[in-house]
Order: sequence, then structure tokens, then C-alpha cells
Amino acid sequence: MARHTARDLRSENRFEVLHALFELGPSTRQELARHTGLSPATVATLVTEFLSGGVLHIAAVERNTGGRPQERLTIDPDRGRIVGVDVAETYVDATVYDLALGALGHGEAALDEHENDPDYVVDGILRVIESAVEDGGTERERIIGVGVSMPGHVHPDTGVSVFAPNWDWHDVHIEKMLEKVLPVPVYVDNPLKAVILSEMWFGVGSVVDSMAVVNLGTGVGAGIAIDGSLLRGTTNNAGEWGHTLLELDGRQCRCGRRGCVEAYLGAPGLRTTLAEIDPEHPTLRQSRQRDFVEAVADGLAAGDPALTGLARRTSRYLAAALGDLVNLLNIPSVTLTGWTSDALAEWLVPALRDELPHHVMPGSLPGLTVEPSRVPGNAVALGMAAFTLQQFLTRLGLASPAGTRPRPDPDHGIDRSRQGQRL
Amino acid sequence: MARHTARDLRSENRFEVLHALFELGPSTRQELARHTGLSPATVATLVTEFLSGGVLHIAAVERNTGGRPQERLTIDPDRGRIVGVDVAETYVDATVYDLALGALGHGEAALDEHENDPDYVVDGILRVIESAVEDGGTERERIIGVGVSMPGHVHPDTGVSVFAPNWDWHDVHIEKMLEKVLPVPVYVDNPLKAVILSEMWFGVGSVVDSMAVVNLGTGVGAGIAIDGSLLRGTTNNAGEWGHTLLELDGRQCRCGRRGCVEAYLGAPGLRTTLAEIDPEHPTLRQSRQRDFVEAVADGLAAGDPALTGLARRTSRYLAAALGDLVNLLNIPSVTLTGWTSDALAEWLVPALRDELPHHVMPGSLPGLTVEPSRVPGNAVALGMAAFTLQQFLTRLGLASPAGTRPRPDPDHGIDRSRQGQRL
Ligand SMILES: [Zn+2]
Ligand SMILES: [Zn+2]
Repeated sequence: MARHTARDLRSENRFEVLHALFELGPSTRQELARHTGLSPATVATLVTEFLSGGVLHIAAVERNTGGRPQERLTIDPDRGRIVGVDVAETYVDATVYDLALGALGHGEAALDEHENDPDYVVDGILRVIESAVEDGGTERERIIGVGVSMPGHVHPDTGVSVFAPNWDWHDVHIEKMLEKVLPVPVYVDNPLKAVILSEMWFGVGSVVDSMAVVNLGTGVGAGIAIDGSLLRGTTNNAGEWGHTLLELDGRQCRCGRRGCVEAYLGAPGLRTTLAEIDPEHPTLRQSRQRDFVEAVADGLAAGDPALTGLARRTSRYLAAALGDLVNLLNIPSVTLTGWTSDALAEWLVPALRDELPHHVMPGSLPGLTVEPSRVPGNAVALGMAAFTLQQFLTRLGLASPAGTRPRPDPDHGIDRSRQGQRL
Repeated sequence: MARHTARDLRSENRFEVLHALFELGPSTRQELARHTGLSPATVATLVTEFLSGGVLHIAAVERNTGGRPQERLTIDPDRGRIVGVDVAETYVDATVYDLALGALGHGEAALDEHENDPDYVVDGILRVIESAVEDGGTERERIIGVGVSMPGHVHPDTGVSVFAPNWDWHDVHIEKMLEKVLPVPVYVDNPLKAVILSEMWFGVGSVVDSMAVVNLGTGVGAGIAIDGSLLRGTTNNAGEWGHTLLELDGRQCRCGRRGCVEAYLGAPGLRTTLAEIDPEHPTLRQSRQRDFVEAVADGLAAGDPALTGLARRTSRYLAAALGDLVNLLNIPSVTLTGWTSDALAEWLVPALRDELPHHVMPGSLPGLTVEPSRVPGNAVALGMAAFTLQQFLTRLGLASPAGTRPRPDPDHGIDRSRQGQRL
């Protein structure tokens, strides 16, 4: 049976301290030890490593009555820059962050849903990174890593898109393709893993240890955390809530099965529901998914009765599908994210809350909160930046065998002259 | 946010060592440290504590070439006796185990499904424990604890049956009622938690770290383990897979919702399916659930076409509902347990395996195993005995503050003269 190795634990301790710094803000070593439950010695070692790597700096020195002076530590936002990229089926969205994961610049572009050439997608990613970098006035040589979320089945250790059904991709080495052009480490993962890391670090994770965040867009899925750990599953495929059943033999889902949740709650599913209510409804003329969802939001604001019916049916589907998630996992919190949620949450959530008691087992209902995510900006891009920061800290640690003091590694920055490319 | 305390970790380390002893058989301290990933010092401390408490004894002393003599340790089966009790809606089933969880004696009785008085159920439990104790020729004073699985929502810390829908129980203090009569610690939990602990310790847990075990009986549910930890959920309600949707607005489920998995895969659900296929089928005349399921098995063996149709439809429902579980959790193993599974697995599993690829996402299918559980005997009773053993070890540890050596506690045995009751 797989067991934690000492190396795994060292990484995890490192991430615990990092997470605590985000949650607590500027902190003393004692506060970090208390919050993480790690020993003062372990915290001291990691803080020394982070200080040497320039990731932390000393924000203040406090002299309490009777005690020794205490250093208050904080992440140094200017140690570097990180780019988080959200590649979806219809768009690419990138954000440049400082090392404290504050957003500095943003870029986005539409992807042609019918283009599936990996070079086309990679080119889109590079263009959008470029515009985010320009928007943020970022010095390119300060970028220490790029995190890219890819839809479908991704293998984060190898950076391979194992299977992306919408593009019919099999084993596309997306990380290698990007690293050929971008002279910094690239980390590839799946959006469900990114949104749950965001939620753990910057959302309800400050209040609860177990949670799901439901991502509503073209596809739908759930990022899941149990007892403070992100649920990846054996092959990084956990969270395919979009492909659990709402109705056996129901609507055709694009995964090949019938009746999946996604066929009702994905943006094309909303279109199907509206067509069932009123096949002639003018909103159905919007051919692009995001335009359609925006038009639904506008129509709801104007009190359109067919769209009101659509919202009511969609809330009920959502309550039923979230009920399944809560009944199985008995989690105390579900948050909603993604562009469909951004556009429609104010109409969906009140009705959803009314419906939930009909779908959640009585023992799992008290204390259950369901709300739009409070994670700022694009939760996928932010989560990918957080993963990239974790990777950076791990490399920092690997460069420092016990007893030696690590130094900032100049290769973590971009040397443009050496690479001669456009980032 | 909730964090592990040092106390939690000490319990967990203790259980890790115990689990390793079950998995490895007689082991040296080094082997236990290697298998658990715990430090040799931690293992040495726990082994000393277990030896002092009489839980372990030295099976052999080995002299390897060049090395120090090494003690090979094993659980002492004769340190005590544990009773595991499976209380279901239609029966009570009890097994007496030695401390190595070898079964020594068994007892069972039917419960009247229409009787819901707690005293009636408690009396049934006591009678069945008594017959298991007699069957095993167990000396009553050697019993160190009784573990009782109760259906519904259970709070294991207080031993309260918070809600048992089939009996309409609310906040029945089942542990207190039993401890009034049984002069040993009683531990109460839910069957889904018991079956997954059994599976982790005595089933596929020797091969995988994450798994689900699906319990098929009157009700259905799933015990879930993720990365070697049992999933309890916030209120010990995790695993209510029986109350996830197979079909929105489908068959009425006794939980009040329509279309739950249990309405198709619980024993009464099988009856409904058969009535849909052939409302006049003679098997439907069996009024007791277990007789009905046994008659279905007999009819399948005889090639009855309506029952063959029932098995085919049931396999398909099961594949769909297991597909949801696997798509959400991306676990590598699902096992089947419970009396419906015992009776019908040989007819359900082959068809289920044929159906599964239609319901499981391609990334979660390779390497997925679905099979009847290999856990011997009643997995609920065995799991409850294992929990009771964990509780016993925790008490052993609590009685030994750092630096002192714990001694066997005579109160862990039953002093019949003092209590004068019938156990
Ligand atoms: Zn699907
Ligand atoms: Zn139900």
C-alpha cells in the first residue's frame, strides 16, 4: 500500500506554512506553529529556507513585555511573478500575480470551439500570457513560473493532457510544448483541482476543512477537499460530478452516457432546457455560449417568463445534483464558481436554497452552506498560480540539502537574451 | 479551521501500528516502522505500551547474521474478547472475536420490522450477544468491549442514535441503554463506517489506499476510504450513496425523495423491479425480505426468465450508480458486501462488469476493480469489533501518561459478581 514518504511530508509541511501565511497575514514563527500544528523546530527550518530563498521577508520586529523580540514574517510579493492560465473550451484567460498572489495584469481571448489543433491552442495560450504580461507592466525576467489549467484528463507530474474529449486530444505533451517557448517551469493541471485549491486558500477554506466547489461553465464539475486535503483520485480524475446521473436514460451527454448532470447544468444544457420551455425564444439565437448565458441574465433582470422558468428548473436540477454530492460526502460547504455561476448565481441561489432540503438527508442539512464563491477574480487562474508557487517552493527546498543554506536561483527568472522568444 | 492535535495523531499512530500488525502478521519493530512510515522511536514507544497492556506478545526472537537479536511481535489473541454486533432493520447478528479478531462464536435473531420500541431492539441485541457468547464458549469476564452498529444517523462520540428513519427514532441513547446492562465499554457506530474499516483492514485495503465498499441489504450505502482514512463527513453521515439520484422524479424512496439509488437496489427495490417485469411472479409471495432475496437466488439458479430479467436490470442500475461513485471519487476499487450481495453477487457481478464501461469516465476505468468483498463473515460485526479494539487501545494509552508504564486494567474485564447481569 502507498504510504507517505518523508519527502512527501516535507512538501506538505512547506505548503501548510505557506497556506497559514495566506490565511493569517504577517505572522510570527509561534503563530505559524500554532496554526499549522507543526513543531516549532519544523516551522523554524522552513522559515529559514523561505527567508534564504527570498520568499519571505521580515515585516516587523515586535518586543513584547518580558519576551524575546519576535519577527513578524510575510510573503515578499516582489520576489517574483507568476502567471495563472485558465484554458477552457471557448476561451483562454490569464492573470499575472505577484508572489503574494495579488493580481497585477489580465488578458483573455476567445478560442474557436471547432479548432482542435494543439498548436492553435498553444498559440492562444502564448498570446494571452503576452497580453496579461503587458497589461500588468510585468518585467518578463521576474516570472518564476506559469501554471496552465487544461480541460479534461491531465497528468500533472508529466504535464500531459491525457485526454481532452472536446478536442479529441490524446496524450498531448502540453507542458513540453509550452516550456519549449517559455523559459520558465510550466505546471499543468485540471481546472477542478485549481478551483478547490483557490477555495481552500482564499475562500471558505478559512472556515471549513472539507468542502466542494462546483464549477459551472460549458462543462460542469466539482473540486473536492476532505479534511484539508485536495481530492485528486487515483488518476487525477476525481470531481467528475458533471458525469454523475441526474436521470438514467435522460438527455444525451457529450461524454457518451445519457442523463449526466452536465447535460442539464452545462451551458448547452441550459439552452436545451430553454428550448423545451419555448423553442422559439429569441435568446436561443445567441450562438456563442457566453453570449447566451449573458442574454439569459439580462432577460431574467427584465422578468422574462420563459427565462424565469429556465432559472427555476435549473435551480431544481442544481439542488438535486448538489444533494447527491452532500449526501455522499457529508461536507458542510458547497460554493459555486465559473462563468455561468458569475452570470446567474443571483437568480439560481435563492431558489436552490429553497429546494435543497428536499434533496439533502436530514443529518447532512444542519449547518450546510451553499453560496457563490468569494474567491476573487478567475478562481482557475488563481489556483494554477498557487500550484505554481507550491512547485517553486518545492524546488527551493530540493536545492537545499539539510545543513546548507539555499540561495535564490537566477534560473528561476527568465533570461530573454538566451531564449529569444516573445514572452 | 480544525487542525490535528497531538492527541489525534497519537491515536492515529497507534491505529497505524495495529493495522500493520493485522496486515503483516508477526513483525519486528523495524518492519512496523518501515510499513507505517512512522519513526522507529514512535513505533518503539507504542510497542512498549502494547506489550505492557498485554495486547502484544513476543512470538519469536530472531538472531540475524551480524545484527542484534530482533523480537517478532504479534497480537495476543487471548488478551481479551470483543463482541461485534450488526443491528439491521430486520435482524440482529453478533460475533464474538478474540483480540486478533478471529471469530469464536456467532448468534442471530430476526427483528420484527414493525416493532420500533428502543427497549425491544435493546433486548434483541442483548439476547443475540448472549447466544454468540454461549456459541463461542466465551468466559464473560474476558470481554473487553462491545461494538454495536446501528442503522441511520449515529453519533459515535456520544453513542446516540440521532435519527433512525425506519424506526422513527430521534436521539435514542443506545450506548447508555446498553452500558447500563453490559458492564463493559460499548461503542456505537454506523454500518457504513464498520464495513469500510473491515475492508481497509481485512479486504482490498492491503492493496489500495482509497476504496469504496457498497453495502446491499434493505437499505444500501457506501463506506468510503480516501488515502487510507475512513470518510466520516462532518456529522458521520458520509456514504449515503443509496440516497443519490438514479432518476430524478423516479421511484418513491422511503427517505421522502424520489428516484434514489436505494429505491432500485435495496431489497424492496428489487421486489418493485420484479413486479414491473411480472406482477404475478410467485417469488413476490415471499413476504420477508431475506426470504425474497434467497428465492430470487434459487430462481436464478434454475434459469427463471423473469428473475434473469430482474438480475439484468439490477446489474444495469448497479453499474450506473457505481459509475457515479467512481466518476466522483476516482477510486481504484469497489467491493460489494451485505446480504443481498452475498446471495446475488454471482449473478450481478459479471453483467455489472460488462455495463460499467458505459458509465465510468475513460480516465477512471483502467485498473478499476469491482468485486465481491473478501472480508470473512459479517463485515459490519467485524468492523465494529475493530473499532472497539481501537477504543481499547486508546484507553490503554490514556492510562499511561508519558514516562509511566501502563498496566493491564482489571476493569477492562467484566466482574460478573459486581454487576450481576446476564452477559
Ligand atoms: Zn456525461
Ligand atoms: Zn432516498
